[in-house]
Amino acid sequence: MRKIGIIGLGHVGAAVAYTLVTKGIADELVLIDQNEAVVLAEKLDLEDTQAGLATHTHIITQDYWQLRDADIVIMAAGDISIFSDGKNNRQAELRITSQIAEETAPKIMASGFNGILLDITNPCDVVTTYLQRLTGLPQQQVFGTGTLLDTMRMQRTLANELHVSLQDIQGYNLGEHGESQFTAWSTITVATRPIAEVLAQRNTDFTALEKAIRTRAWQIISGKGFTSYGIAAAAVTVVQAIFSDAHVTLPISSWNSEHQLYIGQPTLIGRTGTLRVVDVALTEQEQQKFNHSATYIQQNLDSLVANLPR
Amino acid sequence: MRKIGIIGLGHVGAAVAYTLVTKGIADELVLIDQNEAVVLAEKLDLEDTQAGLATHTHIITQDYWQLRDADIVIMAAGDISIFSDGKNNRQAELRITSQIAEETAPKIMASGFNGILLDITNPCDVVTTYLQRLTGLPQQQVFGTGTLLDTMRMQRTLANELHVSLQDIQGYNLGEHGESQFTAWSTITVATRPIAEVLAQRNTDFTALEKAIRTRAWQIISGKGFTSYGIAAAAVTVVQAIFSDAHVTLPISSWNSEHQLYIGQPTLIGRTGTLRVVDVALTEQEQQKFNHSATYIQQNLDSLVANLPR
Amino acid sequence: MRKIGIIGLGHVGAAVAYTLVTKGIADELVLIDQNEAVVLAEKLDLEDTQAGLATHTHIITQDYWQLRDADIVIMAAGDISIFSDGKNNRQAELRITSQIAEETAPKIMASGFNGILLDITNPCDVVTTYLQRLTGLPQQQVFGTGTLLDTMRMQRTLANELHVSLQDIQGYNLGEHGESQFTAWSTITVATRPIAEVLAQRNTDFTALEKAIRTRAWQIISGKGFTSYGIAAAAVTVVQAIFSDAHVTLPISSWNSEHQLYIGQPTLIGRTGTLRVVDVALTEQEQQKFNHSATYIQQNLDSLVANLPR
Amino acid sequence: MRKIGIIGLGHVGAAVAYTLVTKGIADELVLIDQNEAVVLAEKLDLEDTQAGLATHTHIITQDYWQLRDADIVIMAAGDISIFSDGKNNRQAELRITSQIAEETAPKIMASGFNGILLDITNPCDVVTTYLQRLTGLPQQQVFGTGTLLDTMRMQRTLANELHVSLQDIQGYNLGEHGESQFTAWSTITVATRPIAEVLAQRNTDFTALEKAIRTRAWQIISGKGFTSYGIAAAAVTVVQAIFSDAHVTLPISSWNSEHQLYIGQPTLIGRTGTLRVVDVALTEQEQQKFNHSATYIQQNLDSLVANLPR
Repeated sequence: MRKIGIIGLGHVGAAVAYTLVTKGIADELVLIDQNEAVVLAEKLDLEDTQAGLATHTHIITQDYWQLRDADIVIMAAGDISIFSDGKNNRQAELRITSQIAEETAPKIMASGFNGILLDITNPCDVVTTYLQRLTGLPQQQVFGTGTLLDTMRMQRTLANELHVSLQDIQGYNLGEHGESQFTAWSTITVATRPIAEVLAQRNTDFTALEKAIRTRAWQIISGKGFTSYGIAAAAVTVVQAIFSDAHVTLPISSWNSEHQLYIGQPTLIGRTGTLRVVDVALTEQEQQKFNHSATYIQQNLDSLVANLPR
Repeated sequence: MRKIGIIGLGHVGAAVAYTLVTKGIADELVLIDQNEAVVLAEKLDLEDTQAGLATHTHIITQDYWQLRDADIVIMAAGDISIFSDGKNNRQAELRITSQIAEETAPKIMASGFNGILLDITNPCDVVTTYLQRLTGLPQQQVFGTGTLLDTMRMQRTLANELHVSLQDIQGYNLGEHGESQFTAWSTITVATRPIAEVLAQRNTDFTALEKAIRTRAWQIISGKGFTSYGIAAAAVTVVQAIFSDAHVTLPISSWNSEHQLYIGQPTLIGRTGTLRVVDVALTEQEQQKFNHSATYIQQNLDSLVANLPR
Repeated sequence: MRKIGIIGLGHVGAAVAYTLVTKGIADELVLIDQNEAVVLAEKLDLEDTQAGLATHTHIITQDYWQLRDADIVIMAAGDISIFSDGKNNRQAELRITSQIAEETAPKIMASGFNGILLDITNPCDVVTTYLQRLTGLPQQQVFGTGTLLDTMRMQRTLANELHVSLQDIQGYNLGEHGESQFTAWSTITVATRPIAEVLAQRNTDFTALEKAIRTRAWQIISGKGFTSYGIAAAAVTVVQAIFSDAHVTLPISSWNSEHQLYIGQPTLIGRTGTLRVVDVALTEQEQQKFNHSATYIQQNLDSLVANLPR
Repeated sequence: MRKIGIIGLGHVGAAVAYTLVTKGIADELVLIDQNEAVVLAEKLDLEDTQAGLATHTHIITQDYWQLRDADIVIMAAGDISIFSDGKNNRQAELRITSQIAEETAPKIMASGFNGILLDITNPCDVVTTYLQRLTGLPQQQVFGTGTLLDTMRMQRTLANELHVSLQDIQGYNLGEHGESQFTAWSTITVATRPIAEVLAQRNTDFTALEKAIRTRAWQIISGKGFTSYGIAAAAVTVVQAIFSDAHVTLPISSWNSEHQLYIGQPTLIGRTGTLRVVDVALTEQEQQKFNHSATYIQQNLDSLVANLPR
């Protein structure tokens, strides 16, 4: 039986739940949210979708104890409304999400949970680092979606630019799932050719292209108030990699032993969680960007410790 | 190529679009909404989901002319916010949705569209009737999801009550997709046995059970502010029946020649639209409820004609 | 993790394996066959199919010990070639399959296997009964696909006859998965209406129709030498019902305590196996056919005990 | 509506049909084989699988005229039995398949067919070249699966070698779908790193590895007598790329204007067929292998013209 818990049933958590149900990935879903009425409503709405499916997903609500034998718990609790003023209030988001993490972690662990904890909240790297400390789970069992979604956006942006399928675009966005991330151009190929070669005749403005990738999230947020389907797809990709013991390399937020924090880096994933960080031979400049991004995450971690009453 | 237009990208339209993309049902999607920013945001978010799929869906926005060769146009434009005060403002909803229908129908038809128009807005039966008149499309090419969603809810409610899979529950909810609908108990079987037999020893309160089915929608709306996943599943079920020429009987809102309006009734669906209404031999009492529901729809149609400036 | 063993990699076992892989149902497959080269070939061919899938299935071969923690073992070993002379050699088939069962059961059990044993070999009911005795597994953990495939064929035959989708046809074929089976006409509905009503004006020859259903298997065998896709679909339907704890009623070959043998009867299926036999209120005549079918299975069981050296 | 014709219902054609049905890709399938009984059997067996699906596929048999409005016709007619003696009888295979092509092409074209002709028979490149000439269809509407299957096998072989997912392996096998093919090592990356770098410390015998990739097909044939699931997956990948206008680069057998024949090369595929050959910057040595492979195909084409009575 595949059992998954989702904590936080906002737009993102609900989209993840819907995808897991309609694709028949989860046999059992445990849905938890501070708003009891919302969870019940999502349970009913999700149950209504199952009439035409060959699979069934049993949906349980508001019961942390049910997480004791969950394979995966997805942390999706946050408060997107802090962006409703259109400003980039990442500090405010950090305060809220870290507080939720502090309240939630002990409840998850009290159930006896010993599966994989997948963080999809923001700021992803800081919160994932914090969640690992709060839960005390082994580092390989805790990780965040990191720059997987940014990588998917990079693939789409370049695919549109070059009029090819995104399946033809390989490579990674790395670092913080936030403004300090970067496109690792040296890793990117188009139908196996290095992108520098492909774009050689084009006089391409890589900086502009990279910015377009990074601001894609803000375009979505400014239009619909939040992003949901892309992050749901990223989360489900990770979930499928875990269940099928895929040994696939994904740019998720995993433990970086040099920087002693979680950060978006190519990581091999299997049933037991992260298997190892995959060396992709960044250029010196890219490595600097990566280090800079790590520093930025560390600063946020420091502010977290400094600002919150302990 | 399977080309589908969706008009209205609120929670429902977006959930339909997401399902069509992730299940690889549509090769081309045309998304139209009065809010340009929302459509662009949904397009970007939907594109972000496609990285791990074996299928591709090309997404076009805000271009009515692209509907000219669409196989299906799904009408999903409405304004759920009128329920935000928790009251049952169906009259207000009718005013808004009929106005949208009036504005939209000529634009759809101006493209040269001659496919199937599937209405999933509320009040479904009135709006579907109105849309058929406004577009002048043949009656078999216009229909609404009607009581298909209510039937799915009935299946789920009875399945939960009896601790069996909803696949074991057959039968229909019929009439208006609204408060005057009814559960056609004479059509319902549990693993092929008439439900009256199955529940004979149970002293079941059928009226309470029927009310529980009908109020399921309100439970969802009161919790999350709208319903989306169930109606999306219903719409996609109809879409798949059309594309695969399924000749399947579904309780959709189709043209009833006796009452001269659209109403939820078992209807055979194929590639060309509705093939015929399927006689399910209702009891006299059920037939009365059906007629009563038709009368209620007619009254709403009359108020529509009376109240709107023409 | 979902782990499934398949014993016997002929056309049927291979088709089941292929379906489990392409639908992403199994995370791990254990393939066992007396022909080592065939198993290796199927493993390689199945691995080749996974390039475009979002899921991965790890394939293990020829290792009974790997069945110790399998959720389900599918018994698919038989020898279809005995029908290659076009004659109905069911007795010969019984000898061969029962011998395979005798050889295989101890090996399965020696692994420590305590999951669900699903028999899809023929003669299904006799072999399933025999397998339960040989393994000593609880009766609810052993069952065969029984008349599920015959029911699917009945649905298709009637759907073709009536020009409707097979989803509109409900009801069961019951009894032996063989010539003594019968169509339980009293259970059959067409879009919820009893089939007798639907066919009332048609002067339908039910006996001819029933024979057409029953001989469908022979039409396939005479054309391609075996049947594979239909039985694979039936097996996968049962597998999905088990994994998702569906509580769905399927006409599988389950333990009948009155007749003290396995026979095709409506049975509720969940994660732990068969939950209970579902009473579908057969007519007296249908009950006689069922008893007759049970007698036929018993005779075969007796001949099995009589003929085989013990 | 998605309409696909399959000519030849042997193991391969049947596996393609089964996959198209179970994945709900084809709304209508036209099955044609010289053996009427086999086609009818496959139709019945395929119909039996549809009971639990949300999609329907209408199956038509033995009617060339139905190909007139097919989107895609898949050429799968051949005679694998010529390999049953375990020898590599490619010349014999060429005689048989080319003869089938000669008989079949006029029948396809007589229907008025103007879709995409996808060849999956062997020797793939020769037969595809021959089919294009015989049908007179535009070169971009005719192609073969070419080295797509070999590429999938290369991905799997390297993935197994490196204990990673095949999704981490990018690159191509190119040239003839036969013994003169080659692994284009310069195109291959492992999680974006050039394979030469990844294998640098390993003292890898690339020649042995390449041979292992190439002989994978023979391992399967020697075990089960034919290959079916891998080639079915390759064919379905191409079909999905066509329907969804994917603009994806696949190493299929497409028209090479320099050599004036069809050969496995990276090719962009969309709804109208092949859009363009994609330059992947082979090394000089790889280019020589490619040319050598082209020469080999040309020799076979010459022998075809020389040996067959015209």
